[in-house]
Amino acid sequence: MDKITVADYLIQELYKLGIKDFYGLPGDYNFEILEAVIKHPQTNWIGCTNELNAGYAADGYARIKGYGALITTYGVGELSAVNAIAGSYAESVPVIKITGIPATKFIKNNTMLHHNFQNPDYKACERIFSNVTSAAASLNAENAKQEIDRILSIFIKEKKPVYISIPVDICSIKIDNQPNITLPRSNPANLKAAAEHALKLINNSKKPAILADTLIKRYGAIEPFNSFIKKSSFPTASLLMGKGITDENYKYYMGTFLGEYGNTEAYNVLKESDCVICAGTIFSDLNTMRFNLPFVPDNFINIQGTYCTIENIRYKDVLMKEFLFELADKVCKNETIHPDWKWYYQQIKEAPSDKDLSTHYIFPRLQQFLKPNDLIFAETGILTYAMAPLKLPEDALLQNQVLWGSIGWATPASFGGAMADKSRRTILITGEGSHQLTALEIGNMMKQNLTPVIFVINNAGYTIERLLSKKPVDEFNNIMKIDYSKIPELFDGKAAIYQARTELELDKILNEISSQKNDRLYYIELFIEMMDIPPLTNNILKGIK
Amino acid sequence: MDKITVADYLIQELYKLGIKDFYGLPGDYNFEILEAVIKHPQTNWIGCTNELNAGYAADGYARIKGYGALITTYGVGELSAVNAIAGSYAESVPVIKITGIPATKFIKNNTMLHHNFQNPDYKACERIFSNVTSAAASLNAENAKQEIDRILSIFIKEKKPVYISIPVDICSIKIDNQPNITLPRSNPANLKAAAEHALKLINNSKKPAILADTLIKRYGAIEPFNSFIKKSSFPTASLLMGKGITDENYKYYMGTFLGEYGNTEAYNVLKESDCVICAGTIFSDLNTMRFNLPFVPDNFINIQGTYCTIENIRYKDVLMKEFLFELADKVCKNETIHPDWKWYYQQIKEAPSDKDLSTHYIFPRLQQFLKPNDLIFAETGILTYAMAPLKLPEDALLQNQVLWGSIGWATPASFGGAMADKSRRTILITGEGSHQLTALEIGNMMKQNLTPVIFVINNAGYTIERLLSKKPVDEFNNIMKIDYSKIPELFDGKAAIYQARTELELDKILNEISSQKNDRLYYIELFIEMMDIPPLTNNILKGIK
Repeated sequence: MDKITVADYLIQELYKLGIKDFYGLPGDYNFEILEAVIKHPQTNWIGCTNELNAGYAADGYARIKGYGALITTYGVGELSAVNAIAGSYAESVPVIKITGIPATKFIKNNTMLHHNFQNPDYKACERIFSNVTSAAASLNAENAKQEIDRILSIFIKEKKPVYISIPVDICSIKIDNQPNITLPRSNPANLKAAAEHALKLINNSKKPAILADTLIKRYGAIEPFNSFIKKSSFPTASLLMGKGITDENYKYYMGTFLGEYGNTEAYNVLKESDCVICAGTIFSDLNTMRFNLPFVPDNFINIQGTYCTIENIRYKDVLMKEFLFELADKVCKNETIHPDWKWYYQQIKEAPSDKDLSTHYIFPRLQQFLKPNDLIFAETGILTYAMAPLKLPEDALLQNQVLWGSIGWATPASFGGAMADKSRRTILITGEGSHQLTALEIGNMMKQNLTPVIFVINNAGYTIERLLSKKPVDEFNNIMKIDYSKIPELFDGKAAIYQARTELELDKILNEISSQKNDRLYYIELFIEMMDIPPLTNNILKGIK
Repeated sequence: MDKITVADYLIQELYKLGIKDFYGLPGDYNFEILEAVIKHPQTNWIGCTNELNAGYAADGYARIKGYGALITTYGVGELSAVNAIAGSYAESVPVIKITGIPATKFIKNNTMLHHNFQNPDYKACERIFSNVTSAAASLNAENAKQEIDRILSIFIKEKKPVYISIPVDICSIKIDNQPNITLPRSNPANLKAAAEHALKLINNSKKPAILADTLIKRYGAIEPFNSFIKKSSFPTASLLMGKGITDENYKYYMGTFLGEYGNTEAYNVLKESDCVICAGTIFSDLNTMRFNLPFVPDNFINIQGTYCTIENIRYKDVLMKEFLFELADKVCKNETIHPDWKWYYQQIKEAPSDKDLSTHYIFPRLQQFLKPNDLIFAETGILTYAMAPLKLPEDALLQNQVLWGSIGWATPASFGGAMADKSRRTILITGEGSHQLTALEIGNMMKQNLTPVIFVINNAGYTIERLLSKKPVDEFNNIMKIDYSKIPELFDGKAAIYQARTELELDKILNEISSQKNDRLYYIELFIEMMDIPPLTNNILKGIK
């Protein structure tokens, strides 16, 4: 039988899932794994500034490509990335965390090597990662092949992070090159019963409506979902995390659900619906506008990744993708409700003036700047809700981290996203308070010759924290001052650097960028007032604690 | 009875341990704790660039002041700092990790709030930190007072990190202001028995010798240890982690133990000794020069923080500090061995030339630059062993992270160290490959008006990894190019920036700095050849895997 080394087998199988770029940092226990990445003719090693950034980059990559991978050394390396993997876990972004660990003999003797404790604990990191992954394994000579197959089967089914650690001596042992990775399938009886139940409910309803969210993409169900909405013609809204899942120019699209805080047309349609079909939804506080849903999802149809709930009956082992194909196949058209989505940033009518820049101008102007196919990463914070009223151009994708909400995520995540699909223009929008945590990652964007457009909105500190804390001017909301426009100058590579303080300046910059061929990194620092908070953000977040 | 809020009580008791500065980042669940820090008249909030850096800074602070504290928000904040706390745990640096978490009602209802998972798990982070701390607690209305007392008692006894999470609503409840924190004491019978046993062994020995290490400082035993060595006159070496614990100008000091790789006078004295007294020693691979000890510690006297082992008999509940006081009190002088320590960087005789800079010149020149009382932070990597032949001036302190070895640690740790004792000059020596991970923290040094001297040795990538991996020029050992000398210019504040490529240039810079009053941050980038590795480092690390 054909034989292959453990490290080569793992990389080979991950490449089959679409992982071309592996993110991380080298360390003295992961060289064998990195060599396998380099040796494979189709895979690349992408070094990052530090492990947290590498984890975020792998997350950004996985959001676009479906799967991502992060390789670090043990202890010191992997423990710097726990937060990134936890974020991927929270938001169902499948990133595999691969760790190179010391040779088997040291583990067996519990030797006090560097990167371990005075009472060495070779299982500590696996236990830690077990809290933020669907499955974890430590390979040895006996279990390597079967554990890789098991872990990747769970990876593919659950669409959440998994963890594998490989002792250096195990990397090069030979195993059978006969993958036994199971692809998830629905339980046929459950799938049939669920589809019948759902279609009966839908067919009996007068005002069906759809609420779409981000997990549709994670579970690879975009295609059947689009067939379903188009064939049914049911009015469709999205939650904030899933903004862009639905073509926002689609006739029956109602925009982003914002509860009673905005876009109340969508709110009212959902409120009056006698059959809301939720697909891939995450019902967290900030995604539901502080639990402002006007209906109970499980009372109707709630389609999750590997199960669905219909009228409070839970159907196990029903895959979203297969279930949506069933619905798309059998649903009947119902055009009774024709919502008219008007609640988005409108074309700016006035000529740009020399008024000070404010969020009031920035986001409508950004709307005009966007192009079809853009890939937009929006940081957590005051920006989150400012993105909701955008009307995304055709095939544009918006990425955010509304559930996990780790500031600093967007900068390295946009690096991974830009790597994942170089045919798109990548746009990063971040506040300077968040950007500061991970800003150096733009050096790796430049090293990789990427040409994103980066907006850093500088409002002199943690404005969202000023909004949430009792005393906005509390010392702890002030951060060290950085001259952000100098950051791209630290690195080798081409960058165009701008600063804008007025509407006119921003307008000119964006016109200039739009007229150019994107052949460099664009870095635009926008200065706004410290307490300039878009009204929607303010209304939703004020007093949230 | 006098009442106090939970948050105020915690800060009050931590201040009593000597914690004046609290490190971290604000987040929407820790404002109440930060307010308590700000309200306390003697404590300060020290914001950092990100949570990992904040954890490193708290570690650096604790190494000098005895204890440190890190405050973050839950999930996203704390999970970025796991590696820093793990490093403190490995090296017995007492840092308390304090997390602000959502209100009790949300925890009870397991509500899907931001910074949590789709299946919320309010215990996940506590479980994670349990792997890298001596004790962890989540406070509630019933247990708050007693859990703080319990956790701080363990903190004081074990000298390792502990973890406390506080729901926002619990911060402001009132508890009795009557601390019940137990101070550790030896078991009197065990202490007596151990001391008698040890003294008998010492008195019967002909060639007693001492091996000192870093835990002497952690367990507050510097004073009795110094009495012991001076009263006994036994020849004394230190392990690398404990370099500087012993006055290096002390007559019977034998220098740093380097196994058979160097300073073999010390090796031979220890080899021939019939009674080696180890104090506060960490016997890890890199600290023992790859397990190159010429004796078995437990066969003689091995003094650890809370126990000791003598001729393979373990005496529990014997505190290092009390035990060393006993030994110092009763030991007799023995001057039979007079080792002559010569193995250190010698005065440079030749005038500096325009030769390219190399490690061969840098470290002896650094030796001459050092002053009494300097506080030196040396990064993990090729530098580790280059520091071993330094002869530290009086009262100078060297900090390293030889056991945990997390690259990037030294930059923020030196920030915390500089804050902890402003009367000392702080010196940071790092390679650019490590510096890159955490470099922005120098902005907070400037914000705090600190005036460290920072050496960034630029050898164009991860040279230590080039040494350890099969192919030195493997792509993964190349990192993005940064113009390091521009980093201080990003920030507001005073910095003197230098670059040196020749011996002459470095000599001139150091003369200039030495002649000045330290009133700004000094940042010196030193360029050396990619594979310039000091011989000792090369000999010890080559083929380590």
